[in-house]
Amino acid sequence: MPAKGYFDDDRREYVLEDMFPLRPLKNFLWNESMLLELDQFGMGPSKACIDKQFRTVVCGERVIYVKDRDSGEFFDINRNFARKPFDVFRARIGQGYHCTESACTGISASFTLLVPKEDFVEMHRILLRNDGEEVRRLSLYAYVQPFVNLTGVDACGRAEFREDLRGIYYTYRAFRQNNPYTDVFYAADQSADAYELTADAFFGRYGTLQNPEGLSADRLSAKQTVFEPRYAAVLQFDIELPPGEEKSVYLAAGTARSPDECVRLAGKYADRQAFEREMLAQREIADAYADRLSVSLPDSYLNRMTNVWLKRQMALGKTWGRVYGKGFRDVLQDLSGFVSLEARAVRERLLNALQYQFISGNAIRMFDPILDYPYQDMPVWIPMAVGAYLKETGDFSFLKEETSYYDDKRKESVFCHMKRGIDYLFSHQGRRGLGLWGGGDWNDSLDNCGMQGKGESVWLSVATVKAAEEYLEIAEQTDRESCDLSDLPLKIERLKGAIRRFGWDEDHFIYGYNDWDEKVGAEENREGKIFLNVQTWAVMTDILSLEEKRALMDTVERRLKCPYGYLQNDPPYETPDDHLGRLTYFSKGVYENGSVYNHGVMFKVVADCCIGRGEAAWETLKMIRFDNPLNPESGVEPYAICNMYFGPSAPAKKGFAPQGWITGSAGWMYRAITQYMLGIRADFDGLIVRPCLPAEWKEVSAVRAFRGATYRIRYVRSGHFALIADGLPLKGDKIPLFQDGVHEIVCYC
Amino acid sequence: MPAKGYFDDDRREYVLEDMFPLRPLKNFLWNESMLLELDQFGMGPSKACIDKQFRTVVCGERVIYVKDRDSGEFFDINRNFARKPFDVFRARIGQGYHCTESACTGISASFTLLVPKEDFVEMHRILLRNDGEEVRRLSLYAYVQPFVNLTGVDACGRAEFREDLRGIYYTYRAFRQNNPYTDVFYAADQSADAYELTADAFFGRYGTLQNPEGLSADRLSAKQTVFEPRYAAVLQFDIELPPGEEKSVYLAAGTARSPDECVRLAGKYADRQAFEREMLAQREIADAYADRLSVSLPDSYLNRMTNVWLKRQMALGKTWGRVYGKGFRDVLQDLSGFVSLEARAVRERLLNALQYQFISGNAIRMFDPILDYPYQDMPVWIPMAVGAYLKETGDFSFLKEETSYYDDKRKESVFCHMKRGIDYLFSHQGRRGLGLWGGGDWNDSLDNCGMQGKGESVWLSVATVKAAEEYLEIAEQTDRESCDLSDLPLKIERLKGAIRRFGWDEDHFIYGYNDWDEKVGAEENREGKIFLNVQTWAVMTDILSLEEKRALMDTVERRLKCPYGYLQNDPPYETPDDHLGRLTYFSKGVYENGSVYNHGVMFKVVADCCIGRGEAAWETLKMIRFDNPLNPESGVEPYAICNMYFGPSAPAKKGFAPQGWITGSAGWMYRAITQYMLGIRADFDGLIVRPCLPAEWKEVSAVRAFRGATYRIRYVRSGHFALIADGLPLKGDKIPLFQDGVHEIVCYC
Repeated sequence: MPAKGYFDDDRREYVLEDMFPLRPLKNFLWNESMLLELDQFGMGPSKACIDKQFRTVVCGERVIYVKDRDSGEFFDINRNFARKPFDVFRARIGQGYHCTESACTGISASFTLLVPKEDFVEMHRILLRNDGEEVRRLSLYAYVQPFVNLTGVDACGRAEFREDLRGIYYTYRAFRQNNPYTDVFYAADQSADAYELTADAFFGRYGTLQNPEGLSADRLSAKQTVFEPRYAAVLQFDIELPPGEEKSVYLAAGTARSPDECVRLAGKYADRQAFEREMLAQREIADAYADRLSVSLPDSYLNRMTNVWLKRQMALGKTWGRVYGKGFRDVLQDLSGFVSLEARAVRERLLNALQYQFISGNAIRMFDPILDYPYQDMPVWIPMAVGAYLKETGDFSFLKEETSYYDDKRKESVFCHMKRGIDYLFSHQGRRGLGLWGGGDWNDSLDNCGMQGKGESVWLSVATVKAAEEYLEIAEQTDRESCDLSDLPLKIERLKGAIRRFGWDEDHFIYGYNDWDEKVGAEENREGKIFLNVQTWAVMTDILSLEEKRALMDTVERRLKCPYGYLQNDPPYETPDDHLGRLTYFSKGVYENGSVYNHGVMFKVVADCCIGRGEAAWETLKMIRFDNPLNPESGVEPYAICNMYFGPSAPAKKGFAPQGWITGSAGWMYRAITQYMLGIRADFDGLIVRPCLPAEWKEVSAVRAFRGATYRIRYVRSGHFALIADGLPLKGDKIPLFQDGVHEIVCYC
Repeated sequence: MPAKGYFDDDRREYVLEDMFPLRPLKNFLWNESMLLELDQFGMGPSKACIDKQFRTVVCGERVIYVKDRDSGEFFDINRNFARKPFDVFRARIGQGYHCTESACTGISASFTLLVPKEDFVEMHRILLRNDGEEVRRLSLYAYVQPFVNLTGVDACGRAEFREDLRGIYYTYRAFRQNNPYTDVFYAADQSADAYELTADAFFGRYGTLQNPEGLSADRLSAKQTVFEPRYAAVLQFDIELPPGEEKSVYLAAGTARSPDECVRLAGKYADRQAFEREMLAQREIADAYADRLSVSLPDSYLNRMTNVWLKRQMALGKTWGRVYGKGFRDVLQDLSGFVSLEARAVRERLLNALQYQFISGNAIRMFDPILDYPYQDMPVWIPMAVGAYLKETGDFSFLKEETSYYDDKRKESVFCHMKRGIDYLFSHQGRRGLGLWGGGDWNDSLDNCGMQGKGESVWLSVATVKAAEEYLEIAEQTDRESCDLSDLPLKIERLKGAIRRFGWDEDHFIYGYNDWDEKVGAEENREGKIFLNVQTWAVMTDILSLEEKRALMDTVERRLKCPYGYLQNDPPYETPDDHLGRLTYFSKGVYENGSVYNHGVMFKVVADCCIGRGEAAWETLKMIRFDNPLNPESGVEPYAICNMYFGPSAPAKKGFAPQGWITGSAGWMYRAITQYMLGIRADFDGLIVRPCLPAEWKEVSAVRAFRGATYRIRYVRSGHFALIADGLPLKGDKIPLFQDGVHEIVCYC
């Protein structure tokens, strides 16, 4: 069963009512320099990204204790380690904030976390209310675990309470330690009555978070320390609460380079007004995203995901990539979806990403931090992202923006970067004329098929066709002097021919040929006879006729469907095979080895739409939903698409989703719904509306901001396609650029 | 106050009666390939050393739960997380084993850990006894946390129960993972009634070790698993215990390369007879050490330390160095002390260590794993260790044993290795004729004084004098053809001259001159005006007259004494100084920055004896004792010497000993007591007895095995020195080689 909870649509929150679900549910808070990965309790690390490396600020533990000074009883308001019968215990997963609410022994409490729009800081608000009829004498203890030991040598750390900070100051200065962010603080908007600096002192040497020994005394010890293996930042506030009254404490934790900077940040952020201002700022961001596109479908889950939650998930990807690092491929896909929400940010991010392209045309797999393994598909994603930006904005000046390469200081235009990418793809082909597999492509885990420079990937070849056609489409919009495109169409045709000649096997495309000239993803293989993505991508291109595409998607339905999605490959590998790579070392049914990998499932939804199968698209979206009754133990966040569900072949935990949020599926799901099912696609000179809706969807509408105008689109199910703009029928499926005002569009379909 | 407990001398155990002392007390168990670092609960990691790298086997958690199946009540026999009022709860820290004993709700329980003489295995015995009058239906749960994920990719791990193993099998096979020890097991000598493979299943996703949710059911789930972030190995045994009866379970945890090897090891070691055999083997080792030397002093603590515990601590150093790695300097010092106990092992270890010498003559700082920073003092320790071996055994063939260098395949004799070391020291001198400081010397943390190749160390120069004279002493015993020593005495004299000329400052030696020509450890310095070791080492050599030595030791007493030992330097550094190195980044009073660093304190005890100050030596040993009432909060193990106590200047935790066991102090304390206070020193051609006893020691005797004979030495306090062997007075202080039999020695002193 999915976690107990509900969507509070007015507040754009998910309210989790069962605080102990099958697995922790994630929430992310972030700005451009700070990232919090939280569970439902508001626990989880916060990290500052400094010089493209992460510096942990809070290790993960955040626990707020409230003690009745008269009875000595206490409860931990946001965690409830002891599983006491709280009257209220829930989490509000919000847009840019996280709040736990609890009530126990007549006290209501909430703990809200927030990341301001800038700075290496997290902000806390703790609110207590006396729901009883007696005055309550309480002690509030706010605890976080600061990360201090930057080099692991305990002897270089120390901590102290500072009056000027109204909080605790931790510093670490080691020889040859070159991270300037030596300091961490936890400070409040009011004077603490006592404090503790170490875990030993607060929890007790043999104590636990559940029962901190420090709570047994009237006051924390306020003892100095040095040379600690484990610090704790605990501030104690003694509070007298008359019946019905409430009291709040505002705190901030952050990292800085000096005590002065700590004091400045604490003063700025441990503050009620600052908190309210930043809450408002988060709300404004969500409002702005809502204004760009909203849909009204006959399914409340899809509405929420499209209007609110996928936007947030894409926004995370836009800034932080896959959180542990920024994959070139991943960021470009996220940007391709996100561009309709905030094109200016996309422009900047794209330029940043292109700096990680090699002069050869390929790009580095991941940056911030660097992961340099010779994956071959990076150029594939450039025209998609650049094209999405150009179509959204019409800002062709972008193509002339210049930026350098990862291994070459020379600056060249975005167009040139894109061209080098396409050239790379066509100049790295094997003896069959297919793309050289190298260290791998989208399927990161087929990472040893082509390391000797011989293996060829059919998926990469198909993706090259797609990318080259997108590139041509862009190039045709520009003055043609800058490049000679004359032979590209021929190259594309040749590649298509090679794909058809060498890539086809009975009823589907194979994945490729490895360095040992063995087929991968073919009937002759004992395991991994068929892979999903190469089929769906072929359907997204014009390599096949419509009839062939339909037959191919029938194959997909027949061979890869399971009760909660579509398998990435089948049968899964059970035998480690160094001719393929790490994929074959994964357990059956996990990751790229036979799981329901949602990124691939979203490609499949798009492919369905490409051949007019709106029902199939809709059925597929229902299958991967958090509340699919055929997959009751997934544990997934109801409000975020996850990267995968363990496949039915998994030896255990079938259907389980170990990881939420971190996936390219969000961007593709957003695009699948808006651009393919609703068919609303930006184009260079207008807004295309070419839907592919399931028959059962009757009442459908959308509002889309585009190039200064607002398009209110109503879909009328009529069985034939026609487009009416402001009462006037249009030829074809493209609405012209209105540039301003609100326009009523009716789409018959 | 020190931890509550006592020495059980008959069993050579320390019995800890307060299981929750100020800090955890360590115990180590090991063989040549496996190392367990335990706390009093028997928790702590076990590691296999494979290809000179560590592979964790058990992460650290070992908890044994006993549940009454009728009442549902349980207790964790070795940890008592809930701090229940156990009737008995204690730990027996033994020689080669660790045992916790507890009694609760009428059940007595013990948990004993052992490492067999060979193999990557730890052995467990769990014993339950029904002390009540009713039959008890119990479930015993043995839990350890296996280390599975060798590369961090969860998807490559899996676990299963195996009947042929009578236990649980964990395996991890990842692509490009080249550690062949992929498997871990936990197996028993009898069939389990149920089992659990994951922490989620056993403790509950939100549960804790204190209250495993798995205990609430009658049976553990015995569920399969895959892709786990955190495994657990739990075996459940249902036991019916009539009154007065007891039941034991024998288990083994280990690592291997295949299931078959796991089965073989489990069969060999999860077994009562094997356990008893290995217990006996540990006892035999301790017996053998006892037979080599035992002392009877008028102080029971010194007797215990000398006869039992320092031997064990040295034995750890002999095999595992500093546990995290084998310091060249550290291993050689440990061997110099350990040689009297097991010379054959020392021979082998010395040859092994010399392979880490460079052809230049210097050696690598640490091996297994490698730490390569250009410390300059490595050659200093070779003649001391080689000389100790030769004097103990008379085995001069050792000097002709050939071994290679770290950076050169050519094999050369041990003598040649030693010579290259001495040559290195004399050919790396600065413009004052003192030894070049380079990356540092004994004082690892003065690591930036000489990196530019100019700084000179006085300590290193003094140590060079000492080493060169030890080398000469050895060389004189050999045929002189192999080397020309004619100019070495002159070089030594020149070096002594430079030390006296450039090293002296008012009342003490400075530590040296850094690359910036600044004095270190001099009056003109604001911090670090004086360092301990350079004074004590000067006293161990003949650089000074006896009168000068006495004056210098008076300076040490006056300037470096604190209530619980002698400071490594004073005043401590408060200002980070890159002209010195990391030492100045440490907090005041910790490590080499003003702590009571026991290694240095032991040098001081030896120096005291060198000038006939037996009382000072004895007073010093009392100061650093675990039960020194002037240092009540040290937290130190009563049975192991620690590396340091925080100095009085520490901002907090003054006198605290954060780390036990891991220190060169053990070998030097052993030598200080036996070779310097009792004065029993092996020599090439006899056994020297030249004591330096405090006046208050009246009844003193020792038994020493040496070259096939046993020397029973009785000290008679007479005020004048004389030595009687088997009734015959000897000239001088050397007893000739008797080669066999027992000999009665009387030493008048």
